Amino acid sequence: MAHHVDLNSDLGESFGAYTIGQDDLVMNYISSANIACGYHAGDHNVIQHTVKKATEKNVGLGAHPGLQDLIGFGRRPMKMDPEEVYNLVVYQVGAVETFAKINGNRLNHVKPHGALYNMTDKSQEISQAIAEAVYAINPGLILFGLAGSELVHMGRKTGLTVAEEVFADRTYQPDGSLTSRTLKNAMVEDADEAVHRVIRMVKDGKVEAVDGSDIAIQADTICIHGDEPKSLEFAKKLSKELIAQGISIEKVGE
Amino acid sequence: MAHHVDLNSDLGESFGAYTIGQDDLVMNYISSANIACGYHAGDHNVIQHTVKKATEKNVGLGAHPGLQDLIGFGRRPMKMDPEEVYNLVVYQVGAVETFAKINGNRLNHVKPHGALYNMTDKSQEISQAIAEAVYAINPGLILFGLAGSELVHMGRKTGLTVAEEVFADRTYQPDGSLTSRTLKNAMVEDADEAVHRVIRMVKDGKVEAVDGSDIAIQADTICIHGDEPKSLEFAKKLSKELIAQGISIEKVGE
Amino acid sequence: MAHHVDLNSDLGESFGAYTIGQDDLVMNYISSANIACGYHAGDHNVIQHTVKKATEKNVGLGAHPGLQDLIGFGRRPMKMDPEEVYNLVVYQVGAVETFAKINGNRLNHVKPHGALYNMTDKSQEISQAIAEAVYAINPGLILFGLAGSELVHMGRKTGLTVAEEVFADRTYQPDGSLTSRTLKNAMVEDADEAVHRVIRMVKDGKVEAVDGSDIAIQADTICIHGDEPKSLEFAKKLSKELIAQGISIEKVGE
Amino acid sequence: MAHHVDLNSDLGESFGAYTIGQDDLVMNYISSANIACGYHAGDHNVIQHTVKKATEKNVGLGAHPGLQDLIGFGRRPMKMDPEEVYNLVVYQVGAVETFAKINGNRLNHVKPHGALYNMTDKSQEISQAIAEAVYAINPGLILFGLAGSELVHMGRKTGLTVAEEVFADRTYQPDGSLTSRTLKNAMVEDADEAVHRVIRMVKDGKVEAVDGSDIAIQADTICIHGDEPKSLEFAKKLSKELIAQGISIEKVGE
Repeated sequence: MAHHVDLNSDLGESFGAYTIGQDDLVMNYISSANIACGYHAGDHNVIQHTVKKATEKNVGLGAHPGLQDLIGFGRRPMKMDPEEVYNLVVYQVGAVETFAKINGNRLNHVKPHGALYNMTDKSQEISQAIAEAVYAINPGLILFGLAGSELVHMGRKTGLTVAEEVFADRTYQPDGSLTSRTLKNAMVEDADEAVHRVIRMVKDGKVEAVDGSDIAIQADTICIHGDEPKSLEFAKKLSKELIAQGISIEKVGE
Repeated sequence: MAHHVDLNSDLGESFGAYTIGQDDLVMNYISSANIACGYHAGDHNVIQHTVKKATEKNVGLGAHPGLQDLIGFGRRPMKMDPEEVYNLVVYQVGAVETFAKINGNRLNHVKPHGALYNMTDKSQEISQAIAEAVYAINPGLILFGLAGSELVHMGRKTGLTVAEEVFADRTYQPDGSLTSRTLKNAMVEDADEAVHRVIRMVKDGKVEAVDGSDIAIQADTICIHGDEPKSLEFAKKLSKELIAQGISIEKVGE
Repeated sequence: MAHHVDLNSDLGESFGAYTIGQDDLVMNYISSANIACGYHAGDHNVIQHTVKKATEKNVGLGAHPGLQDLIGFGRRPMKMDPEEVYNLVVYQVGAVETFAKINGNRLNHVKPHGALYNMTDKSQEISQAIAEAVYAINPGLILFGLAGSELVHMGRKTGLTVAEEVFADRTYQPDGSLTSRTLKNAMVEDADEAVHRVIRMVKDGKVEAVDGSDIAIQADTICIHGDEPKSLEFAKKLSKELIAQGISIEKVGE
Repeated sequence: MAHHVDLNSDLGESFGAYTIGQDDLVMNYISSANIACGYHAGDHNVIQHTVKKATEKNVGLGAHPGLQDLIGFGRRPMKMDPEEVYNLVVYQVGAVETFAKINGNRLNHVKPHGALYNMTDKSQEISQAIAEAVYAINPGLILFGLAGSELVHMGRKTGLTVAEEVFADRTYQPDGSLTSRTLKNAMVEDADEAVHRVIRMVKDGKVEAVDGSDIAIQADTICIHGDEPKSLEFAKKLSKELIAQGISIEKVGE
């Protein structure tokens, strides 16, 4: 049986005179780009540049909407009305979808950023607002969410295709949730082990939780960090070993 | 011969806790709404609210992109690259077009705001950037510009339908340009005279310039202010007298 | 025995082209102005204007620092580092204090705004950060906080003079906290009753809690709303009746 | 006769998650830091950090106020009212001066940034607004301006001590103005030549203009770039050769 998986990364996070990330290098290893939409990061010039580059490299285009908190990079939880979440998703995704269109491409997916992503883990209301906004914009868009999260659940319920996201460098609790970063054993430090875990998640749909038990997990897409030289090395290694294992790297929906 | 004209007004300029304008009242007299896009005014919640209301009242939807200068309300000239103007128009218009779509409606026109509008009066480069951005987003969009301006010229050249805009409360120079507001005779103070001038522009395509000569002018759409009780009174009066003269008020492109 | 109390109100919340509040009228009834500092509301022009006006009317100047969330008017709780809270208080209070100085006046107090104010009710860390920032700027500044709150406690501990704030239009729980606005009996609707309660708090240091019991409360300053015609009427009434009861209205520290 | 000169550089331009510049390295070669104030760059956390570091390294503290245009990094000319320029200088300088104070230090100078700096070259009104704002805040502050500019002239007229700034890497016109960067011969490319020119400006008060003539110039402070490895090398070289020539590097006003 043939296997495939998507590798996604956050791109287009530069702003005005400020440059962040190694977008041009990261694009060589991923199949999906989560493009910042101008709220937590990115601006109209950066979006245009990133959409052009991703289109050239045949990387799938995704909108990466976040909270309107540039100074906090959208990472600070903020109390939000579901109605406002709906509106801010429409605004941001609509803007990026338009850049896709004027570059002769199309938007493939949406992945909420930072605090907005984390809020969807437990909140049904926020997850529903996001799912409904994405569906209203374009029912063909694929919604990315944490594997097993409310967002993935509400996305399916709303009628969207969803992609369940897993993390190569994070450990899992027996209930399938990520181990909190405040705990010591939250991270998988060893690169070989991380690769091995990903391959098992993709091939067997299983991952070993922190208590040693095996849990079921669906790994449609893997989050790749791109901000450090080390993370880029890992992307390269993971990409190579996935292919060696006969797992093709394809954007979701192909 | 049947005559018709469009009445347009700037709407959706509220922001967060700040309310501005008399949108609900103005909508009764106009055929086209220029909706602020979140840069110089407006926000995602206000856009959604304004698109809903305009849709209910069958007012044509327009995007009103401006400079990214909330504190200056987009009225302060700023040095802008044509490339950046292109990108900021795509971003803002794309966002508002998406709100039109999710409300089961469609965007009908684009009118640049404030300093961006004024920059297009003389600058071919800026006018071209705006026209090309609008065309790239959707060649069916109608571009609003000052009658006789570079924007109107570049819009047509790019392949767009354009609407030439006239002002009821402003006087004109013999070359067809607006009299600068720094001059004493810039404004038409008398409401009856203003109405009379508009009717003549629509019916005969002529307006009397400040030197007493008649000049040719194309009046596809008339700018209606809505920020003061007096301006609302004028909108009501103009609307009534246009109809009395057999001139129907219709959004451009109908 | 002579009694006195301070009446404070949030002023200078306009921004750019956006006008909010009835500052000029409210200033007639209050002794302390909480001036927005440009983060949640206000801008450099508005601050200058408001400081000038308050100086002319001999209203005590206060800085009203808030979260950097203009679209949310600083009302949305946001996760904040105590270190960042310290820095944002220094920045905002420092800016407004400078406007006081260039107008030949001096800053008298600091009152946190909205979500920042509410965060101090329970959080010792946030309260301490605010108190230490204010003390570092100027140990002579008076810190306003909810009567009985952590902020008032930490302010005193830090070495600041504090002013305990009470609300005329809110009810109290037996433990001295405000009844949550989500509950039915949160507000004191009747103006006469509200005035009566304030007078008792000032004269006797007591207020009747929702369960009918009397609790001790220190009322150094009373929050006056100024955004509606009705709230202005109440300010006028309260001001008049306090004076009639021999309670003079004086800014804290006089 | 003993000579001395000040070396200044723009620091504290990072913002939120965005890092820019090599502040820690540049601080080793300069005597004055122009600290971004949160409008065109910088934020409350970055200001606090930069003031602390500069204080530790005994680098003179300066405020570097700019236009409220983060996306344009304050480099885009914008039409500004002199009254608004006055207010935005008070706001920004007041904020940074407060950080100096809470760190047991004091603000030494003010240098306008980018487009605001350039606007002062010719505009008397804008220059006067800046000079008066700085004087109102603290008449002991030193105002930095382009050598021979309106800003330097208005600063003196207002009663401030001024520091005339020269550029090591720019050529001069016979009238003492900088050669426009749009012209080919605007830059001094050779590092040895640049150093030689600076030493002559400091020791003899002369510089060779593009037409070969010698012009008089006052060099109180030299602008040091710090954004590239090459510019850091130059700072090191210049610093070393100035000292070798018996010119001590001291902050202005020492």
